[in-house]
Amino acid sequence: MSAAAQQPSAKQRLVMKFGGTSVADLDRIKNAAKKVAAEVERGHEVAVVVSAMAGETNRLVDLVRSVGPLYDAREYDAVVSSGELVTAGLMALTLQELGVPARSWQGWQVPICTTDAHGAARITSIDASAIERKFAEGLHAVIPGFQGVAPDGRVSTLGRGGSDTSAVAVAAAIGAKRCDIYTDVDAVYTTDPRVVPAARRIERIAFEEMLELASLGAKVLQTRSVELAMRHDVVVQVLSSFGDPIGSDLPGTIVCAENEIVENKMESNVVSGVAYSRDEAKITVRRVPDKPGVAAALIGPLGAAGVNVDMIVQDISDDGFTDMTFTVGLADVDRALAALETVHSELGYASLQTDKDVAKVSVVGIGMRSHAGVAQSMFAALAKEGVNIQVITTSEIKISVLVDRKYTELAVRALHTAFGLDAPTAE
Amino acid sequence: MSAAAQQPSAKQRLVMKFGGTSVADLDRIKNAAKKVAAEVERGHEVAVVVSAMAGETNRLVDLVRSVGPLYDAREYDAVVSSGELVTAGLMALTLQELGVPARSWQGWQVPICTTDAHGAARITSIDASAIERKFAEGLHAVIPGFQGVAPDGRVSTLGRGGSDTSAVAVAAAIGAKRCDIYTDVDAVYTTDPRVVPAARRIERIAFEEMLELASLGAKVLQTRSVELAMRHDVVVQVLSSFGDPIGSDLPGTIVCAENEIVENKMESNVVSGVAYSRDEAKITVRRVPDKPGVAAALIGPLGAAGVNVDMIVQDISDDGFTDMTFTVGLADVDRALAALETVHSELGYASLQTDKDVAKVSVVGIGMRSHAGVAQSMFAALAKEGVNIQVITTSEIKISVLVDRKYTELAVRALHTAFGLDAPTAE
Repeated sequence: MSAAAQQPSAKQRLVMKFGGTSVADLDRIKNAAKKVAAEVERGHEVAVVVSAMAGETNRLVDLVRSVGPLYDAREYDAVVSSGELVTAGLMALTLQELGVPARSWQGWQVPICTTDAHGAARITSIDASAIERKFAEGLHAVIPGFQGVAPDGRVSTLGRGGSDTSAVAVAAAIGAKRCDIYTDVDAVYTTDPRVVPAARRIERIAFEEMLELASLGAKVLQTRSVELAMRHDVVVQVLSSFGDPIGSDLPGTIVCAENEIVENKMESNVVSGVAYSRDEAKITVRRVPDKPGVAAALIGPLGAAGVNVDMIVQDISDDGFTDMTFTVGLADVDRALAALETVHSELGYASLQTDKDVAKVSVVGIGMRSHAGVAQSMFAALAKEGVNIQVITTSEIKISVLVDRKYTELAVRALHTAFGLDAPTAE
Repeated sequence: MSAAAQQPSAKQRLVMKFGGTSVADLDRIKNAAKKVAAEVERGHEVAVVVSAMAGETNRLVDLVRSVGPLYDAREYDAVVSSGELVTAGLMALTLQELGVPARSWQGWQVPICTTDAHGAARITSIDASAIERKFAEGLHAVIPGFQGVAPDGRVSTLGRGGSDTSAVAVAAAIGAKRCDIYTDVDAVYTTDPRVVPAARRIERIAFEEMLELASLGAKVLQTRSVELAMRHDVVVQVLSSFGDPIGSDLPGTIVCAENEIVENKMESNVVSGVAYSRDEAKITVRRVPDKPGVAAALIGPLGAAGVNVDMIVQDISDDGFTDMTFTVGLADVDRALAALETVHSELGYASLQTDKDVAKVSVVGIGMRSHAGVAQSMFAALAKEGVNIQVITTSEIKISVLVDRKYTELAVRALHTAFGLDAPTAE
């Protein structure tokens, strides 16, 4: 808005990204196109970023995997990236049908340049000059998400969910005032509404908070896209693609810089949301010799085996030995144990103990920085409900606890209420 | 063969093209890949050209058409060309699984440059240098047929069946010794074996003959691909993709220059094949004033309406008026009549008469050039069976007659026998 005030003659740019369920068939593409037409009507220059039709990427991935398990990632990319080309063309055609001048771009045509890590590439740069020339001719852009072109001149993909990242990168490249991510949820909530019916929509949330929530299981935005938005200060809006196409939807959630939150919220909650993840497992290494470098010696092989270690706790040493406890994703347990077995003699631990019945519950909020006592309130709320805390980790804006999995919902509800997040009850 | 003798150290190059039914699923792709592996084993550098999986192009075309009837051909191309990208990647992966080093190329990566007639582009040039560098590294090529890149930098397609043309163009660009077109028929026959069980496989056929047969309804090769092969002297072999993958198939049909036929055939038949087309209609314009320019005045509006006129006959003039008879494709009759109505007053003809129950039967052969009496033998053979001839046209290597449609099979069989094409009966 302030930008418009400064340059009243320049059109404001907008990125609108539609995920797979939002372009699952021609009817939904039309619905999405109407939303684009409405923003064009409001005077925006729009770059639309689209995913493949729902199910299409899985179909293509299955074809590639059926050929053989050890596939050439460059060929995987060549095959799998085709799904977005189809939706980009169909979206451009649908916009034209609605009277909106538009053309599709393929990743290499823009070009969207990426690293050469085929199958999991990262965007290195986007040259938006060609798109901007077409904007000047009144031509809106439709861009396939998830893809780019690698330094070897071959098509690359960004890894699953990469279309969010494409959208944010395009927004940064064209200087869009906002990147709207249309998805099948209508906003970011203070917690999972299936667990806590009193969960509230979050109107505005800081990049840092969204990052913590995204990585903690609130799977609304891909983590990388939030990192990118934060780095380039791209305001992201999450909203539903299934509402009224002419734009009178309930507003979604704005993800933006912290200072814009403070400006917009007179009274800020200390905690913005409660997240949880049930896909956790706890591994304890019993009686490791307590000497410098032992933690690294343990964690090193796990990293080498591709296991992501999350929480780590080391017990107080007892007669020169200690216990190390850490959590990994449930799917990584077997690989983690195998990796630890290979260094058994080297480390000289007594035994490995695994608990697959755990869950992680976290409270997140930039307000924590300036409010003491959040941890104490959290532990008290859980104690009151008889929830035992197994492991604790904290960061500047997040406190996570590991609990017995059966207490997940109870813990989330207790914390949601304790931090004043419950929606007011209707009279 | 002679090229190999001249450059004994250089590997010979081969193009192998597989149509939609030959890559319809992963099993068939594997079968095709085994044929490629066999040719690689024999020491060839191979460029594989693939169509989209059977049904895929139709699915994509339907999606585009469902958006709206008047679609942007550039977006049509962006969408429809994606099918070949999928098979190209899958073929490269399958070859790698079989131990054949290969990579896929997208049309713009080669690049295959075309005109800007999106949806029906023509190949203008192929820069094979990048592919040839990869050949030198031992890497065989997989190239999507049917697509290229237009001068505007956008993806183009060549029109339906364009993959044959892609294959021949690639063969010319890389100097391949042969372009093998694997398809769902195993050879070109002297006539349709469904009509004449005694039809024989043709071992060798001249480009000119194949062109006449292709345009007359023997739908084995796209006409444009034959024209291109003739212009660049690319030897084309038509063969079945469903035989033994290790290459002991029955040989297919070689399409090549006339002089190579004579070299290879001691005794040449005057007629090489009998073709027919049932999709014909005859239109007669009654009592047109017989003055100079009337034929052009009639045919002009038809061309402008996109109607392809085939045979044309003008009767002997009678008291200053004449009848003009011509044939058009059955699907074009209504458009042809509408076009003629628009010039009714201008031309001053008496009436239009349409006969949709006709068929065209043709004999084709380069031997006709040096043998007199072919027409006479043809007419005699038809007369003997009581088949009345309505219209006759001749070219240097072809004689076509229009007959009542119910006589199609009878006429084809009679001519096949009369010109000595029937296979010898088994003892």
